[in-house]
Amino acid sequence: MEMGTGNDYDNNIGYISTSLTWIKGLSDKMKDKVIEFVNMTIKLATDDIRRVIHSIKVGLALTIVSLFYYFQALYDSFGVSAMWAVMTVVVVFEFSVGATIGKGLNRALATFAAGALGVAAHHLAVKSGNTGEPILLGIFVFLLAASTTFARFFPKVKARYDYGMLIFILTFCLVSVSGFRNDDILELAHKRLSTILIGGSTCLIVSICVCPVWAGEDLQNLVSLNIEKLASFLEGFGEEYFKISEKETTPKGEKAFLTGYKMVLNSKSNEETLANFAKWEPGHGRFMYRHPWKQYLIVGSLTRECAYRIDALNGHLSSHLQMHTEVGGKLEDLCTNISLESAKAMKELASAIKTMTMPSSSTSHITNLKEATENLQCLLKSELWKDVQFLQVIPVVTVTSILTEIVVCVEKIANSVHELAMTAKFKNKVVGPKLNNITKEKCKAESSKVGILPDHEVVVTVKD
Amino acid sequence: MEMGTGNDYDNNIGYISTSLTWIKGLSDKMKDKVIEFVNMTIKLATDDIRRVIHSIKVGLALTIVSLFYYFQALYDSFGVSAMWAVMTVVVVFEFSVGATIGKGLNRALATFAAGALGVAAHHLAVKSGNTGEPILLGIFVFLLAASTTFARFFPKVKARYDYGMLIFILTFCLVSVSGFRNDDILELAHKRLSTILIGGSTCLIVSICVCPVWAGEDLQNLVSLNIEKLASFLEGFGEEYFKISEKETTPKGEKAFLTGYKMVLNSKSNEETLANFAKWEPGHGRFMYRHPWKQYLIVGSLTRECAYRIDALNGHLSSHLQMHTEVGGKLEDLCTNISLESAKAMKELASAIKTMTMPSSSTSHITNLKEATENLQCLLKSELWKDVQFLQVIPVVTVTSILTEIVVCVEKIANSVHELAMTAKFKNKVVGPKLNNITKEKCKAESSKVGILPDHEVVVTVKD
Repeated sequence: MEMGTGNDYDNNIGYISTSLTWIKGLSDKMKDKVIEFVNMTIKLATDDIRRVIHSIKVGLALTIVSLFYYFQALYDSFGVSAMWAVMTVVVVFEFSVGATIGKGLNRALATFAAGALGVAAHHLAVKSGNTGEPILLGIFVFLLAASTTFARFFPKVKARYDYGMLIFILTFCLVSVSGFRNDDILELAHKRLSTILIGGSTCLIVSICVCPVWAGEDLQNLVSLNIEKLASFLEGFGEEYFKISEKETTPKGEKAFLTGYKMVLNSKSNEETLANFAKWEPGHGRFMYRHPWKQYLIVGSLTRECAYRIDALNGHLSSHLQMHTEVGGKLEDLCTNISLESAKAMKELASAIKTMTMPSSSTSHITNLKEATENLQCLLKSELWKDVQFLQVIPVVTVTSILTEIVVCVEKIANSVHELAMTAKFKNKVVGPKLNNITKEKCKAESSKVGILPDHEVVVTVKD
Repeated sequence: MEMGTGNDYDNNIGYISTSLTWIKGLSDKMKDKVIEFVNMTIKLATDDIRRVIHSIKVGLALTIVSLFYYFQALYDSFGVSAMWAVMTVVVVFEFSVGATIGKGLNRALATFAAGALGVAAHHLAVKSGNTGEPILLGIFVFLLAASTTFARFFPKVKARYDYGMLIFILTFCLVSVSGFRNDDILELAHKRLSTILIGGSTCLIVSICVCPVWAGEDLQNLVSLNIEKLASFLEGFGEEYFKISEKETTPKGEKAFLTGYKMVLNSKSNEETLANFAKWEPGHGRFMYRHPWKQYLIVGSLTRECAYRIDALNGHLSSHLQMHTEVGGKLEDLCTNISLESAKAMKELASAIKTMTMPSSSTSHITNLKEATENLQCLLKSELWKDVQFLQVIPVVTVTSILTEIVVCVEKIANSVHELAMTAKFKNKVVGPKLNNITKEKCKAESSKVGILPDHEVVVTVKD
């Protein structure tokens, strides 16, 4: 073998240093990944500590169920089938109590029904002789699997019994097909059902007794939070749109309250899932068994409708207000006011849902809103606009128009929250004036003085 | 016993007739339910015949796998464990190929990893003696279950590997805990893995070979259909808003094209699920393996943004247009035109996505749109508005303003579809003029003549 020349030596040094740089780069990358992972973990845990608790609960339930294997007496009565209990815990234990109960009941009932049907199918097949048995069993399996799979496409079945349907097919196959090799299938069906019941009840007990997470409560908080997010936007909007457009300071997109509403836009599937889980939950705390969960979905859907309008409003944050006339200033004040009053009404509604109290004071905000909208109409009808250039007022007119629509949305939300408060029997029944019977003062009487809501003390006088 | 009196007799007759009515009512109700059920079944089947095919496929795959039990040779090599294959088919077989592959791979890989880890845990536990074994195993199960459950909260893990995590816990428990009673756990782990592989591959073969349903294709069709729905709305909007508001004929809410867009508003979760499934799918037909599914999500998200604007527009369908002036007519024509041209551009884009061809002619529609928007600006700047009452023009100004925003959305969608066409290498690369370099004619030159798009031959003249 030849010795390395000087050139080779340099090359080697080069290779080594390149490799070292590469290794260093790799280790730096690894370090970054690890740091990112740790940060993500901390964020997930601190954002919702219930995640950590849930993980511990799953570990606990599994360890408890594993005892069936460790202790001789328990093992003797169930044998290897005790493993079904472990599996049930793994599969059934969900984040919320409702989801756990739903899955557990689905699994237990489906196992019971399919077990019985499987035993019947087996007995029928046995009667048809040795050659006929596998053929008949095959036909049974095919027909049941195909029809049950099709049943899973029914929307109502999909929403609540999807998992049950799956377990139904599974257990039927297990019992009927096993019967072909094992004559003691009644015992098999029985063991499967009892182990599943043991696993399921372990889940249920741990889920309810150790820091329970109620899907119903989550749904309530979500609906309330969504309304609050819209309120935060509206609270900031007037200030942001009318005031800052004069003296630009920070980029508008960066403010949290202006983007928070975006999460509301896509909240539908989340709300529906939670409502489905909540329906499985027993009465607890302030919630009855038949709590009107559907009404939360109605409130949620109206909130989303409002969020679409707010998204349209958000599109106008970038368009600058270019009018510095008297009437422009009045319009600005009225719009800011409507936006602020809507925000107040919505905050009140959100807190009413969260604390489950009657939203009594929201009615006064709604009254104010109606008044302000009427004043707006009066201002728009006035002669003040004659001197204003048309193109200049387009953005503000659009904003005004969208705001008017938002007011309608807020009223709808208020009505639906009131209905929720009635049906769910929220406490402190201090019923305010009925929403639809607010005395409508005629515009004529108001036309000489466009009064703005009292707590802002801005009065606009319109020449008639 | 006493004989019944005449009164009793009458009473009996009364009971019988009431019972008969009740039974008749019940049977009528049952009949209605059955008819409803049959209609629903027919609707589900005819809406998407693939549902029926899928059900048959599941039945087929299950029957094939059951053969393992029926035939002696196969049963001999796997024994009762062959049941795992049946279970795998029930659990893994999903509607689309992507979902089936995803679940199958998750199940297989998780079983492999957890099996190996379970065997290792068992060996470690065995070394700690008879008392130490169950304690150590319990600790292992607790730690692994808790940490894996927590890992399921990571968004990326949740989206693609949630099922794998579940199976990971399940198999680990199965192998390590079984090991406490059964020393041949290597064989157990091996049998479980092979039966799962057999079940999984059966699913895969049936799923791909018998009328495959590709999630990717579904995603593409969904994105395309959503754009088409918005186009249908815009196509009908101008007609509906400006023409019908003069001569009211049918209720506006009842027309299908005016409500079709509502499904687009909540399409996010559906699109994301399909994209997740599509990522698992191998190349097939016109789709490569690494097809840019993400870009479909971007197009989908922009489509939703446009749908929010359209929802705002829809809110104005009820507000009547109250201006019958010259300038009003011109504005109407321009708006109808913008709405129609947007619809055309979107239909073109939708069909480009569906047929996977370059959306070449959409650029000309976009050019037309830009022109029309400029003309609109000119019209708005004109002096024609001096004689118009302000309150009257508010609805139409708002509609105009929202339409302008929709045009911006359409442009964004067009750009994103163009990018999709580039990255996904759509055929017929007849690249039109670049979107951003459209020659902008100055408003001044146009101010004397607000030309409307050539294919409608409406020319509005504005006095300057």
